[in-house]
Amino acid sequence: MHDVLTGPAPTAVQVLNGPRGNFGDTIVIDDALTETSSAASAGVGRAQGQYVWASRGNPELLVTMDVVLTSGAYAGSSVTVVGRDDIGAAVRELSVVGGTGQFRMAKGYVLWKTVRLDHPNAVLELDVFVNP
Amino acid sequence: MHDVLTGPAPTAVQVLNGPRGNFGDTIVIDDALTETSSAASAGVGRAQGQYVWASRGNPELLVTMDVVLTSGAYAGSSVTVVGRDDIGAAVRELSVVGGTGQFRMAKGYVLWKTVRLDHPNAVLELDVFVNP
Amino acid sequence: MHDVLTGPAPTAVQVLNGPRGNFGDTIVIDDALTETSSAASAGVGRAQGQYVWASRGNPELLVTMDVVLTSGAYAGSSVTVVGRDDIGAAVRELSVVGGTGQFRMAKGYVLWKTVRLDHPNAVLELDVFVNP
Repeated sequence: MHDVLTGPAPTAVQVLNGPRGNFGDTIVIDDALTETSSAASAGVGRAQGQYVWASRGNPELLVTMDVVLTSGAYAGSSVTVVGRDDIGAAVRELSVVGGTGQFRMAKGYVLWKTVRLDHPNAVLELDVFVNP
Repeated sequence: MHDVLTGPAPTAVQVLNGPRGNFGDTIVIDDALTETSSAASAGVGRAQGQYVWASRGNPELLVTMDVVLTSGAYAGSSVTVVGRDDIGAAVRELSVVGGTGQFRMAKGYVLWKTVRLDHPNAVLELDVFVNP
Repeated sequence: MHDVLTGPAPTAVQVLNGPRGNFGDTIVIDDALTETSSAASAGVGRAQGQYVWASRGNPELLVTMDVVLTSGAYAGSSVTVVGRDDIGAAVRELSVVGGTGQFRMAKGYVLWKTVRLDHPNAVLELDVFVNP
């Protein structure tokens, strides 16, 4: 997952600035999902939604997004993810709260790692586990 | 579901404008639910929440809302819906991620169609399937 | 849960004002959870997320948050909560739509009461029921 806020083709836009520092910052995303951590690798989907800096201190985000697959056996299906991204942790866990298409009625979880950070941009690895 | 942003009695307000076009636009809703697609038909509930334009291109929204019923056998119960609304698709599927009252612990899905579009207002048909 | 918007150490910030009254107001929270309703009692966690005033009339909020426990047997685990908070009701029910750590794949619900209201600040009692 490529979260790109800067450069010629950003896939994320900051729509709110917290009134006192980062607390309250809100970013809306339409991030590309690719097979590997290289942005040049094959596209597999999009992560569309928002994240909110919901912490007075360290970067701890509340993420609400839909992960829609656009290629492969699950093309057109999606999982819906809500959860907390404590950026300082090596691996974060978020909840799969639902899904559509082949993932209809799914429950599960996502393990989420930062692969590269070039602030404010980041490449994340998502391992999604789904119990259909 | 009557999503009305204009006129004398709007039930939805745009609270954020994306910094570059629609990407990031955020609308908060308190939309009326009626039995048929006519706004004059009997009220059955409210859809309260928000949707975010989470796409750099076509209108693809991330919806987070609670659907509370106000009449009939399920009056006072609600389902919570999160998902992606790809406005260009004839039928969209969103997830029922929970519920309250008689829908406590529910899982399910919503099939969602545009019945009438009078931009920016729309009448949507929601078919909610719940596994209690 | 201590929702504090004012004073020297607020744990919640209002990031959006509705264009016409409160409808659309959005507050981001990083609220302290304590064992009892006294802010001086032992801390047990944080409620991080946001709530949106999603009503044209009475205060009815759409809450999206992660409740992370920081002490006790479940320290490090969290539940994700989405739902409607009709502030005028004595007891409100919201959905537990997922969880992490020991609450992975959880479903459940929260019963939510206002213990003290000192507008705009509030102390809430949360009783969380989880089916792991």
